[in-house]
Amino acid sequence: MTVSLPIAVTLGDPAGIGPEIIVKAFRDSGDDMRGCFVAGDVGLVRRAAALLAAPGALALPVAEIESPAEVAGVPPNCVPVLQVVEAPDASIAIGEVSAAAGRIAGNSVVWAARAALRGEIAAIVTAPLHKEALAAAGFNFPGHTELLQSEAAAHLGRPVSEVPVRMMLANDELRTVLVSIHVSLRQAIEAVTFDGVLETLRITHRSLTAVLGKPPTIGVAGLNPHAGEGGLFGIEERDDIAPAIAAAQREGIAANGPHAPDTVFMRARTGEFDVVVAMYHDQGLIPVKYLGVEKGVNVTLGLPLVRTSPDHGTAFDIAGTGRADASSLIEAIRMARSLSREAAFSAA
Amino acid sequence: MTVSLPIAVTLGDPAGIGPEIIVKAFRDSGDDMRGCFVAGDVGLVRRAAALLAAPGALALPVAEIESPAEVAGVPPNCVPVLQVVEAPDASIAIGEVSAAAGRIAGNSVVWAARAALRGEIAAIVTAPLHKEALAAAGFNFPGHTELLQSEAAAHLGRPVSEVPVRMMLANDELRTVLVSIHVSLRQAIEAVTFDGVLETLRITHRSLTAVLGKPPTIGVAGLNPHAGEGGLFGIEERDDIAPAIAAAQREGIAANGPHAPDTVFMRARTGEFDVVVAMYHDQGLIPVKYLGVEKGVNVTLGLPLVRTSPDHGTAFDIAGTGRADASSLIEAIRMARSLSREAAFSAA
Repeated sequence: MTVSLPIAVTLGDPAGIGPEIIVKAFRDSGDDMRGCFVAGDVGLVRRAAALLAAPGALALPVAEIESPAEVAGVPPNCVPVLQVVEAPDASIAIGEVSAAAGRIAGNSVVWAARAALRGEIAAIVTAPLHKEALAAAGFNFPGHTELLQSEAAAHLGRPVSEVPVRMMLANDELRTVLVSIHVSLRQAIEAVTFDGVLETLRITHRSLTAVLGKPPTIGVAGLNPHAGEGGLFGIEERDDIAPAIAAAQREGIAANGPHAPDTVFMRARTGEFDVVVAMYHDQGLIPVKYLGVEKGVNVTLGLPLVRTSPDHGTAFDIAGTGRADASSLIEAIRMARSLSREAAFSAA
Repeated sequence: MTVSLPIAVTLGDPAGIGPEIIVKAFRDSGDDMRGCFVAGDVGLVRRAAALLAAPGALALPVAEIESPAEVAGVPPNCVPVLQVVEAPDASIAIGEVSAAAGRIAGNSVVWAARAALRGEIAAIVTAPLHKEALAAAGFNFPGHTELLQSEAAAHLGRPVSEVPVRMMLANDELRTVLVSIHVSLRQAIEAVTFDGVLETLRITHRSLTAVLGKPPTIGVAGLNPHAGEGGLFGIEERDDIAPAIAAAQREGIAANGPHAPDTVFMRARTGEFDVVVAMYHDQGLIPVKYLGVEKGVNVTLGLPLVRTSPDHGTAFDIAGTGRADASSLIEAIRMARSLSREAAFSAA
């Protein structure tokens, strides 16, 4: 039997747009939000609900729950919140970096990671963090991915280096998985190794099989212009990428390439590949974001938990105005649901 | 007085789709082709016209002209051809690499370059070359750009290194100018210098002022993810790109950045910049090609002549079938016309 566990939506940095896009999603997309609850602080969610209420109208009700399982009893058009952090001593100023905001944001994620690893929730959808606020609160991680990787490594009793993760960006038109993310372009070239590419192909195959319900066709981008033009413009295709693709094929993975980077994404968009493995951050993110970032979803692949997030930041400049768009968060929740269903089926 | 000079369309490799897209353009877009003539071989253009004729129907007539100026007297719905190369001894096989085809292609471009440099034609629009055929014919250039640069340097009496050129790719939605093109990604990083970026900004400013009739707003991409994130993911933004932008601004160039590469193209697409200066080949070409390559135009900037081309290759696989699409060639002719008009005005 597949038990439908709740999905935790972490609050994100409360000085940013996280709380208001979460409330908007519950207000405007009730069906998508069934079985979801906010892992965060009740008072801050109430503040966002009040902010979004039309003048003179009632705010969307916020229901404090005592455990994830209680989400099933919360009526529709009501935001269930589990208090997973200490309530702040003082008001959190909107649009400002603070250790207090970073602490709430980080601790919400830590709670959700542990709950997911214990099997109490089906998935984590994370509202955006602010890197400086996180650092001010003493979290030594540049973002969610590294924090979750560290929690997973601790849970599994392995060093972090043995919990390889990859970022996938997806929208309606394109999915791409990146060999490396937040490093300089010089370092990204060094990360294009046989092992790095093969591991990316394995993770992509495993995760996309879950998303699609069938093994994906993976188009692999080259690193250099024209995929190296037969060695004229670079040798990484010949020495690392092509051998990694061949090794993956021997494992039964439907990967092909390396393809010219400037057309592989267009070819994926028109249906030739289910996903593109990109050799570095901007190679994959430029095409995903080109048509607009409203509906992009970020998925962390390789972890023993399901985690998705909207593909945007805290947007301090518009936080508190109610103008932030919840589309990407809603897409992230849909993606988390489909990934966690498949994960539940394959574990059953 | 502005004299409207003719525009030469070079034949391209006659084993590829060049001749047939040229004939299609004259057949289907007569207005766009006014004042244009083919610089190449009469027999090969006749062959393409015959190939495109419906069974039993007459082929589009081909008129041999004796000088560029005669184009004005050629009736519409007729393809004017100037015989600028030696007619081939034997038939040129379609879809095959040969020195004979490479010689015709290369010599057509050399003729057109010299005619443009002498001021006899307004612009050159080049149908695609095949790199291997060109090499087999003894031309030591990877493509048009380097051949034209060499001809311009000889004309100006300067070393090639003192005739800096840059490639611009443009379609209906986006224009991008590249700091480097056909080198490995490692070498492309080395080309991101203060001088290389500043020269690109100057060329972009000068050329786009001609295209737009006003100074362009130039968005400059960073090299690294998030444009280096304040030095965390790379130092080229701080050490080279930002100082080059500042120097350009002091010269009155409306450049700004460096911007995060993964969103700068999307921002240009929605109108924030007239053109994006990209730090390497795929950074600029991935977004330009993402929506489809049918209408992309390639423009060589920095030369003392106007040269544009369609943004595709010889397509040997479909050459001779009549299936090749002439849209990109027609766009290249429109772009050449607007560039040469502005050049004529500014020289007047």
